[in-house]
Amino acid sequence: MKCKKCGETAVIKLRSYNISLCAPHFIEFFERRVLGAIKRYKLLSPKERILVAVSGGKDSLNTWFALKKLGFNADGFHIDLGIGDYSRKSREKAEKFAHEIKGNLVIVELKDEVGYPLPSLIKRERRTACALCGLIKRYLMNREALKGGYSAVATGHNLDDEAAVLLSNLLNWNIGYLTRQSPLLPSWHPRLAKKVKPLCEVTEKESAAYALLNRIDYIHEECPYSRRATSLFYKDIINQIEWRSPGSKIRFYREFVTKGKHLFEEKHQEETLVDCPECGLPTTHPPCAFCRLKNRIKAETS
Amino acid sequence: MKCKKCGETAVIKLRSYNISLCAPHFIEFFERRVLGAIKRYKLLSPKERILVAVSGGKDSLNTWFALKKLGFNADGFHIDLGIGDYSRKSREKAEKFAHEIKGNLVIVELKDEVGYPLPSLIKRERRTACALCGLIKRYLMNREALKGGYSAVATGHNLDDEAAVLLSNLLNWNIGYLTRQSPLLPSWHPRLAKKVKPLCEVTEKESAAYALLNRIDYIHEECPYSRRATSLFYKDIINQIEWRSPGSKIRFYREFVTKGKHLFEEKHQEETLVDCPECGLPTTHPPCAFCRLKNRIKAETS
Repeated sequence: MKCKKCGETAVIKLRSYNISLCAPHFIEFFERRVLGAIKRYKLLSPKERILVAVSGGKDSLNTWFALKKLGFNADGFHIDLGIGDYSRKSREKAEKFAHEIKGNLVIVELKDEVGYPLPSLIKRERRTACALCGLIKRYLMNREALKGGYSAVATGHNLDDEAAVLLSNLLNWNIGYLTRQSPLLPSWHPRLAKKVKPLCEVTEKESAAYALLNRIDYIHEECPYSRRATSLFYKDIINQIEWRSPGSKIRFYREFVTKGKHLFEEKHQEETLVDCPECGLPTTHPPCAFCRLKNRIKAETS
Repeated sequence: MKCKKCGETAVIKLRSYNISLCAPHFIEFFERRVLGAIKRYKLLSPKERILVAVSGGKDSLNTWFALKKLGFNADGFHIDLGIGDYSRKSREKAEKFAHEIKGNLVIVELKDEVGYPLPSLIKRERRTACALCGLIKRYLMNREALKGGYSAVATGHNLDDEAAVLLSNLLNWNIGYLTRQSPLLPSWHPRLAKKVKPLCEVTEKESAAYALLNRIDYIHEECPYSRRATSLFYKDIINQIEWRSPGSKIRFYREFVTKGKHLFEEKHQEETLVDCPECGLPTTHPPCAFCRLKNRIKAETS
């Protein structure tokens, strides 16, 4: 197996593109895909300050690494959720990586924020771990971005993540979710940072290879609360389709964003945002979900 | 395995509905599904005259059988495409069935229409067998419906057919096809019969069981030109999803028709129809595709 670019021994075969590449050319390919998505979807401009949500997994570390290498001004942000060993290891990986790339990493501990780590919160609250964690992450990512003067929050969602969610939303015709699924959620309020997904056009496999070839040391374990079964099932379905018709996965996602998505959007009324009377951040239903969470905890423990 | 309705021995397990049924109750269930789709999507009114496109396969014979049993005024229409043994057997099954149910069956031979059977046409024309056959069937079905005073043409598409096409169109974001995919294509010109799919909410398996239990003798062979591999692949994908989440298949299709579809429709400009100067039937590009086909054959053989 020879590299299509230089004829050296290839390290990876990309069936979707019908090419094999050596390590340096694969890294170049990967970064071009990231830059391509940034340009295609107008995710970021060269000068803006970006806060990368860093879990310690391959995708988020790759995002930070690639953005910096591509010349973007990107710092990291890690939330220590306090999920025992899993959070301890995740944080270690994030810190070690930040040190290696000489990047600025802001860390926030959930326990400091609301008085409890995630496992205790889950027991108190009636919603699922993932719903709760999503709420917390969305709030803290936005808050930290505003605090630090960052205009964008970048997350590590890859093409497999995006295509699987898209398929699942289409199977159920979740118009609301389809409206919001995008590599770019623009800021539509002065205190709401935009959200971008620079890895949206690279696959899970490509992301794993990029981390490996760049010797990025990431956490391999899944979050113990993760309900990955469903997501893995849809990823497998998409991969069967990709295997049969190479190129289907990227086409499915890209055509959705460029052709399909606006059909859903025009039906969507943007909700009115008001300031949360407690934290001042924008919300549709004041006080905001995060402050309500804090209030419930306070009421229960006082 | 007991029938959920009467406790007798069940003959079929319907995993999607989490029920098992005996033969009479399954037949009742099937016909209710057909009537349900007719009502839900406003396919047919009780008095109108329906022409069922009858290939000789299980789905088209079931459509005719169930419509008549439900009290609709339905006759059959068969096109003898002249594909050797396959067409001979198909026609025999259609004729035998019409005789058994004492139904009126109109038969048209492609050879009489254009001078050649399908295999010879395929050699002359540059399009695929399925594209050519589709063109011919659409034209002749509409012409015969108008000639006989039928307001609707009914075809035997089942839920598996519909869901597979829907998935394939979504994977490629074929907005044009998504706009037109419907259990009901209303007439939008006085000389264009509406098209309906009464079996759109019963599965392939349910349709096979209905034919079996009603001792409907149908052709099991596939058309030798059929490119079923792709369709079978998508049906398999949908069935994997159904197996994991029973009810997904019908939800995917029904929610598309009721919630998703109108999003695509509003983007769609209806094309202007004019009369074909040769046959008088409506077309977007006169002369119509069928008359152009006939003209080409005439020119080549004269």
